[in-house]
Amino acid sequence: MIRPVVLCLGDTRFAQEALQQLELIAECVTLPEDTTREKFFTLLNDPTSKLSKVSIITRTAGSIKQTGRFDKELAEKLPDNVVAICHNGAGYDQIDVRYFNDRHIQVSNTPHIVSNATADNHVFLLLGALRNFSCGSRNLLEGKWPQTGESAGTPYGHDPEGKTVGILGLGSIGRAIVKRLKPFGFKEFIYHNRRKLSSDLENGCRYVSFDELLTQSDIISINVPLNQNTRHLLDSNAFEKMKQGVVIVNTARGAIIDEVALICALKSGKVRSAGLDVFEFEPHVSKELMDMKQVLVLPHMGTHCVETTQKMEEHVFRNVESVIKTGKVISIVPEICEEEWFKNLA
Amino acid sequence: MIRPVVLCLGDTRFAQEALQQLELIAECVTLPEDTTREKFFTLLNDPTSKLSKVSIITRTAGSIKQTGRFDKELAEKLPDNVVAICHNGAGYDQIDVRYFNDRHIQVSNTPHIVSNATADNHVFLLLGALRNFSCGSRNLLEGKWPQTGESAGTPYGHDPEGKTVGILGLGSIGRAIVKRLKPFGFKEFIYHNRRKLSSDLENGCRYVSFDELLTQSDIISINVPLNQNTRHLLDSNAFEKMKQGVVIVNTARGAIIDEVALICALKSGKVRSAGLDVFEFEPHVSKELMDMKQVLVLPHMGTHCVETTQKMEEHVFRNVESVIKTGKVISIVPEICEEEWFKNLA
Repeated sequence: MIRPVVLCLGDTRFAQEALQQLELIAECVTLPEDTTREKFFTLLNDPTSKLSKVSIITRTAGSIKQTGRFDKELAEKLPDNVVAICHNGAGYDQIDVRYFNDRHIQVSNTPHIVSNATADNHVFLLLGALRNFSCGSRNLLEGKWPQTGESAGTPYGHDPEGKTVGILGLGSIGRAIVKRLKPFGFKEFIYHNRRKLSSDLENGCRYVSFDELLTQSDIISINVPLNQNTRHLLDSNAFEKMKQGVVIVNTARGAIIDEVALICALKSGKVRSAGLDVFEFEPHVSKELMDMKQVLVLPHMGTHCVETTQKMEEHVFRNVESVIKTGKVISIVPEICEEEWFKNLA
Repeated sequence: MIRPVVLCLGDTRFAQEALQQLELIAECVTLPEDTTREKFFTLLNDPTSKLSKVSIITRTAGSIKQTGRFDKELAEKLPDNVVAICHNGAGYDQIDVRYFNDRHIQVSNTPHIVSNATADNHVFLLLGALRNFSCGSRNLLEGKWPQTGESAGTPYGHDPEGKTVGILGLGSIGRAIVKRLKPFGFKEFIYHNRRKLSSDLENGCRYVSFDELLTQSDIISINVPLNQNTRHLLDSNAFEKMKQGVVIVNTARGAIIDEVALICALKSGKVRSAGLDVFEFEPHVSKELMDMKQVLVLPHMGTHCVETTQKMEEHVFRNVESVIKTGKVISIVPEICEEEWFKNLA
């Protein structure tokens, strides 16, 4: 048996067993540590390199360091034998899917698996922002207790009661967040999607327009994917429409918010506090934003946990196996799902 | 009408309206800002001072700065006209109730009202400790991203799945915590109280012995009041019995944990991480403890939120009103509840 070559971009942290299983039917190769985008392109097209034989590529978000974005240029440089890109992550904004689609290269992601861990992270940030826990913790760590009085001089936070939570994007992650927040005693959950959902998926959340979500929410919870329609969805116009003292929570992608506009809104008090796991220019984070004590910040830890990471890695390898055995990935991205060339695959 | 004198120790932050209502039937007095315990005692027994006429005292935890503990000495120094101490807080470990009981002085607290806000705080700390969010946030604030890699080099945290949560003290707060944690997908909730609860109060939590709770829990959630039976309940012996890598969450009182033993257990890795809102010697917090990045710390913010603080203050004033109108507080502490002298009050 000739085993197809699979290029694994980025580390496998916890799914060693699944990787060993995959190696029974595939030849898994990795890039040298010091690979640059240029070197990557050279290797891909060097007939003496294993990489020129690659038929499936798996990738993590972190591997962007070595290869750069999966953009038009990269798509065009891939050898003809590449049939699938199996991305580790629910969000795949590092991949410009249309150029891979043009070349009939499948792209898969890891939807649903990330929802619980991301929702846990989201609830943490939401509670923290609502209650001023970031400020409290920083005041304590800076040695301000007891000099500055009760709770180290931290301004009083707020309780869930009477508050309306606006879910921007009630998908798998948004629903997991609502499920977790229900026992906390919020007044109401409203949501905005491009289309109203069926009532079983809504599960008690009320559908509103984008503008109604902005004007009615005490807390805005961001759970939409990043694409050309959602980039800077929350810009200075949007912040203007919001309630005075609104709380913003973002565990989706940084660039959904215009970060300069967010900083202005925080300075003016329009936004009272924020919980952010993602940043527009991450891993570079604005010092001005970070230094605001009313902002609870995390370095993109939505799925940074053992159990979920392992499941995501295993799912990527299942996608690879599926391509080898059936010709198709399991979790094709929606942009390709309805394409004739994909439907016609063996 | 002669209005009884009410001494209000500590600030009224949000219940100004309730205070104004109270002032229609009571003369509310406060201590000068610079009062010390000695000066307080002098004023109490100075016939030319309003304080010598006081019949009801309200107090906040923060007022301990001026008066010190409500201990034997203080109880004995109170004028005979004092009939009630209305404490603002669920925990009243700053009051040695027996000495007030001896003098037939009622002591009330604010139970239940604090439960939701404290449970919100607890869930925040629990998620943060489980997922290493304190470490992540500190790494980011220290500028370690992107140099140290994905999530600023923070060790991978863990998911709720498969984890057993041990609730030490399934009272009003413990139950509010379990209610909130249920949708997160933990494996099981076990609890230890002095006595097994009725199954409707248990609500699916399994009763275990104290030792079983220590040996079976992946996360230990502390929700018992501080008293002579619970001081250092978690000492080095208790830590030894716990699972390797246990997570500890305490929003009750610091002294329930022997903090020196906790620090040892964190250093050895026996305790993987902790979420702490309370400290043994607060407001003084061990720098060694705080400096451990795996410890998420807050400066006693369990009820540090507008809505709950207002409700607690209003409840204190309702206790005062009730004494004036009926002779009895509404929420007498359990140590006095069954006393004959209290039952016999008008």
